[in-house]
Amino acid sequence: MMREISEQPEALARTLDALLPARPQIAQLAAGRRHVLFVARGSSDNAAIYGRYLCEVLAGRQAALAAPSVATHYVADLDLSDTVTVSVSQSGETEEIAETQAWAAVRGARTIAITNVDGSALARAADLALVTRAGVELAVPATKTYTTQLAAIAVLVSALADRPDALDFGGVPAAAARLLDRARSAAENAAGLLDGTADTLVTGRGITYGTALEVALKLEETCLRPVRGLSYADLKHGPIAVVDADLATVLVAAPDGPTVAGMTQLATTLGDRGATVVGIGGDAAFGAKCDVALPGPELPEALAPLALAVPGQLMVEALARRLGLDPDSPRGLSKVTQTDH
Amino acid sequence: MMREISEQPEALARTLDALLPARPQIAQLAAGRRHVLFVARGSSDNAAIYGRYLCEVLAGRQAALAAPSVATHYVADLDLSDTVTVSVSQSGETEEIAETQAWAAVRGARTIAITNVDGSALARAADLALVTRAGVELAVPATKTYTTQLAAIAVLVSALADRPDALDFGGVPAAAARLLDRARSAAENAAGLLDGTADTLVTGRGITYGTALEVALKLEETCLRPVRGLSYADLKHGPIAVVDADLATVLVAAPDGPTVAGMTQLATTLGDRGATVVGIGGDAAFGAKCDVALPGPELPEALAPLALAVPGQLMVEALARRLGLDPDSPRGLSKVTQTDH
Repeated sequence: MMREISEQPEALARTLDALLPARPQIAQLAAGRRHVLFVARGSSDNAAIYGRYLCEVLAGRQAALAAPSVATHYVADLDLSDTVTVSVSQSGETEEIAETQAWAAVRGARTIAITNVDGSALARAADLALVTRAGVELAVPATKTYTTQLAAIAVLVSALADRPDALDFGGVPAAAARLLDRARSAAENAAGLLDGTADTLVTGRGITYGTALEVALKLEETCLRPVRGLSYADLKHGPIAVVDADLATVLVAAPDGPTVAGMTQLATTLGDRGATVVGIGGDAAFGAKCDVALPGPELPEALAPLALAVPGQLMVEALARRLGLDPDSPRGLSKVTQTDH
Repeated sequence: MMREISEQPEALARTLDALLPARPQIAQLAAGRRHVLFVARGSSDNAAIYGRYLCEVLAGRQAALAAPSVATHYVADLDLSDTVTVSVSQSGETEEIAETQAWAAVRGARTIAITNVDGSALARAADLALVTRAGVELAVPATKTYTTQLAAIAVLVSALADRPDALDFGGVPAAAARLLDRARSAAENAAGLLDGTADTLVTGRGITYGTALEVALKLEETCLRPVRGLSYADLKHGPIAVVDADLATVLVAAPDGPTVAGMTQLATTLGDRGATVVGIGGDAAFGAKCDVALPGPELPEALAPLALAVPGQLMVEALARRLGLDPDSPRGLSKVTQTDH
């Protein structure tokens, strides 16, 4: 897992180089269609959440995450003639995703597949395949395949935006590379804090919400502990009631933009209630309110998620080692997960 | 809380009587619009998840849940001229929801508000208000305001369907009433099992997924314990790794339809891994695989959620009493929750 975490700057650079030239094709395929429907599960679903926000905020297109059972189990008859689907699957072989993509195509959708495997079932069947260049991933917890999915999604959304140059991708690989060094010691410290608490909750908001869910999923599947990943709002509408000193919270914040102030306020509230607060990203005011602050990338909010998972991955990997677990192959999981029928 | 749980059959009957005549207005308002966008938080969000599935499965209209921060924080400029928004808020005074509804109206959406308070800000501003008839709810955990929201949503979706008589609402209040008696002893038994385990996970799929999230939220906010609410698929794509004998699982299943077989298989898998399995609803084969089986309503899958939360509410109330907590007013929560800005 650690080797693959370290490979992310190169994997991001390769993926961006490969996919940025596809922007005109993407724009043409999606021309005139107002809706983007992401189809994904697991880590890919967390990547899709980033895509959903970015589509709406940056490209002004309504976006949503499909409920695959609507296709696979209920076989609902929807009119998708105004929709582009974006199916996201590392292997490109998750049957449920392929089946949902096929269902959408029959109902009028144009289909784009984001996968790490050229020639996979999903890529072959799609109108357009965006193949990430993560290389082979051996550890079960997704790291470089996840961040390269985010890169593919960001390229896709930039192609849908009126100004394709709205995102400046040039600094992404270097920003990820710097975090590998800069975040390491704080990640070890954070792992120490998480080791000492029974219950963990991860939260984020808006464009960084998907990163929070991804850090939660990584913690759960790699460190084999129950972790709740919640949106900022969902936390405030209920579970805030169970916050006390037994709880460790991980807050994932954007470096700038309209959500940072609220996340900083949340860090203060959680700290006041006695919870341990680990911060990832954010600005200086945010970091000052956290018990441990892991630095985020020097990228604007819209692109920050492409590297913002890196400190979280380092923290998860450090915690797994502390717990005597093998971060490369947690029990109970296989690399290609099927949702059975 | 117990009194309000018991009032649900009457509250459902009043709400259905009041709202069923509005179906032609709803159909007219939504005519020609292919998209339904739900706007909600907390329990109302769980009701909206039911609405999302029902819209797609029964009415053939694409549906999604809004990310309110896209409106309130990013102020994204979307074309909503093909969309009907359905804002759901018990009080009708949640600012974030009202602000998102106003944002949508400016961008071309037709707006429907579902609220329990006639004349509330949300109701006044909407093109059409569907006012539920739950009566005043005093306990902080939503019960009758939640199930009457589901009734309003089912009425709305039936109005969007080609056949407005696709759902037979006649049996709903009586089905809920029967559960108040039939589910009580099993609910006490289930509370005993949950009392003995540290970690709780609630899951469901498709049309009953929202009910699972609502039971999870009720458990968390009323019994003050960390609970994860996860979709069937998300459970299988990761957290299944942390299932063992320390975990209590609550599975919420439909009485019929395409998802029951998978839920029954899941009950078997979880049981084999040593987890405690509490079942709510489902069919006889499903119940046989659970350690305790709470009966669900005698209603078809599409309407079952209107009463399926009742056994879960009874279980939550019983557990709160066992834990020495006051189910009417858990700490840390107020009745009208605002997501700050």
